[in-house]
Amino acid sequence: MTDLAHVASGFPVVGVVGGGQLARMMQQPAIALGVGLRVLATSIEESAAQAVRDVRIGRHDDLDALRGFADGCDVITFDHEHVPPLLLKTLEDEGVAVRPGGRALVHAQDKLIMREALTAAGVPCPLWREVETPSDVADFAGEAGWPVVLKTSRGGYDGRGVWVLDDLEAVHDLMTTTTLAGGARWLAEERVDFVQELSAQVARSPHGQAVAYPVVRTVQTNGICTEVVAPAPGLTDDEIVAAQHAALTVAQALGVVGMLAVEMFETRDGRVLVNELAMRPHNSGHWSIEGAVTSQFENHLRAVLDLPLGDPAAVAPYSVMVNVLGGDKGGLYHAYLHCMARDPGLKIHMYGKEVRAGRKLGHVTVVGDDLDDLLARAHHAADYLSGAIDE
Amino acid sequence: MTDLAHVASGFPVVGVVGGGQLARMMQQPAIALGVGLRVLATSIEESAAQAVRDVRIGRHDDLDALRGFADGCDVITFDHEHVPPLLLKTLEDEGVAVRPGGRALVHAQDKLIMREALTAAGVPCPLWREVETPSDVADFAGEAGWPVVLKTSRGGYDGRGVWVLDDLEAVHDLMTTTTLAGGARWLAEERVDFVQELSAQVARSPHGQAVAYPVVRTVQTNGICTEVVAPAPGLTDDEIVAAQHAALTVAQALGVVGMLAVEMFETRDGRVLVNELAMRPHNSGHWSIEGAVTSQFENHLRAVLDLPLGDPAAVAPYSVMVNVLGGDKGGLYHAYLHCMARDPGLKIHMYGKEVRAGRKLGHVTVVGDDLDDLLARAHHAADYLSGAIDE
Repeated sequence: MTDLAHVASGFPVVGVVGGGQLARMMQQPAIALGVGLRVLATSIEESAAQAVRDVRIGRHDDLDALRGFADGCDVITFDHEHVPPLLLKTLEDEGVAVRPGGRALVHAQDKLIMREALTAAGVPCPLWREVETPSDVADFAGEAGWPVVLKTSRGGYDGRGVWVLDDLEAVHDLMTTTTLAGGARWLAEERVDFVQELSAQVARSPHGQAVAYPVVRTVQTNGICTEVVAPAPGLTDDEIVAAQHAALTVAQALGVVGMLAVEMFETRDGRVLVNELAMRPHNSGHWSIEGAVTSQFENHLRAVLDLPLGDPAAVAPYSVMVNVLGGDKGGLYHAYLHCMARDPGLKIHMYGKEVRAGRKLGHVTVVGDDLDDLLARAHHAADYLSGAIDE
Repeated sequence: MTDLAHVASGFPVVGVVGGGQLARMMQQPAIALGVGLRVLATSIEESAAQAVRDVRIGRHDDLDALRGFADGCDVITFDHEHVPPLLLKTLEDEGVAVRPGGRALVHAQDKLIMREALTAAGVPCPLWREVETPSDVADFAGEAGWPVVLKTSRGGYDGRGVWVLDDLEAVHDLMTTTTLAGGARWLAEERVDFVQELSAQVARSPHGQAVAYPVVRTVQTNGICTEVVAPAPGLTDDEIVAAQHAALTVAQALGVVGMLAVEMFETRDGRVLVNELAMRPHNSGHWSIEGAVTSQFENHLRAVLDLPLGDPAAVAPYSVMVNVLGGDKGGLYHAYLHCMARDPGLKIHMYGKEVRAGRKLGHVTVVGDDLDDLLARAHHAADYLSGAIDE
């Protein structure tokens, strides 16, 4: 199937492991840059597999599939963080350009390794401790207070693998009924009383150039990012600098290549504390497709190809992104008639997925200068597309 | 190969006849809208064939290839205007949704039919006349003056099939040595002494909704559009209204569906006269990818799918687009390092084509408020990418 990766002479092919919407949205700037995009998907129906010429079918945890996939790619990168570290190391030892590399990516795969590295780099985090028993958690709660946030160090995403627990009995119930798998350990963290949740994104290239996007506000619903406002309203200059500085420090300290999203809490006393990391384009940066000079997807491609990075500046005072989640109705395409007629400035992004309750099916973005108006328009459209409202 | 067109349930598939850069650039909004794009290309290496999952190989003048291509598409549209009218009629008679339809498209295929229809609709044109002999041209020149513009009614594009002739001897030489093919006739037109060349683009949907883009200035070099400024500088409000009104009138009078580009001359006495038509996304609208709320490629898809149209308004005071033409050097991708490092706000669009002298290989766009700065940046980048300059 190597005949599928057609690019003009001298132009590279980027392989993306994983066929979700992040890989799908990389295809738009890949087309503009003339870069070939090859996707490793588990089926031809996956989101990104619909959108690129060069699809390979295989699993991200199958070494032979990864080897065959990487053959002919100038660099491989990721739609998700689920490739096992040992396989990444094997590929790198065999000479494959893996970006971000396995030594960086492990910090997005294991929250304990991340906490250790960030603390060593002086990046502000909530109080945290590795714990093995309910008694360890009780000791930690003695310092940090209840409730305690308990996390599995590996395997969680979109709110899975994270529990907020009010007392020792709940801790005991959870730890005695949960089996840790795949090298995961237990991590206890302080429950932060935050003003708002933030995301600070940076792009970093192999030779060390880095650019910082405006810091955005994210709203999580049931652990899923559902709304983003760029830039985050109400931040002080000190907070903006602190958040961008933390993200740039993390990128450099961990040797990240590509996009890095650092999810943070703004505390009531004006500090920013790192919550989670993602080393790929991230839901909190979808606004940048229309709202920034260079989108996170284009800068991810530029970074993994070691090209100079594009301007991350916003093109308007505000951008608002709202996710379209699956409801109990289908008919997404039919809803276009209403949404497009009502709001000619609305930007719709659908991911080619079948409707399933709670599934991220797409997102909408609006850009302008009246934040309340943008929020109302984006939420109306997302609610209409997901079937939550009829008018 | 029908298994290639994967879209979510209820989402349509648009077939694009022709695999050039216009079809390629439709894929970016198709991905966002969740619409499937199928491309009829003559080889797997063509520009658009590199960028979509669902490529069919075949010729645009082969009825069986077109029939097979259309099977499974909800609508078919075009990357160019070269499908023979009789084949379009056959497909439409067989129930294929062809947009724009053959009865509209013939006006972009035959300049005499276009002149007749526009004159009947009251749209201002240069003086024109069908001619058969050099003597007819001499008569026409008696009214319109020398030089005379002589055109073949069919088969010309990018400056081909158009001659500016100074005297009867040159007319005689041309007409006696040129064989008209494919139903083409001779058309004589007044040589317009213009201030600048303009393009007025509109999108129109089957149920008649139409939106007008800002009127832009185009610069042609050897018959190829090489620079576009949006909006055209120095136009009076009357001229803007006249140009947009002419384009909307043409779209309605001819029953255009999709994007229509009306190329015009601004005369020294403040009139706008129609030069040429194109019924598809057009080089004069590439600026809209970054420079407008809704790009010409997205509105073309929306229009042929009879979806409500998107806002065509500009997002910044000026956008400048400059084409990247093939020079005598390769190494296009290597030039990225210089261009991207020098100008992080530059937007590059490459078409996946091999370098050939004079070939449209891509374009660059910059958006902002200082027109002189934008022109300098865009021309520098285009010259560097095409190999015309080294620094």
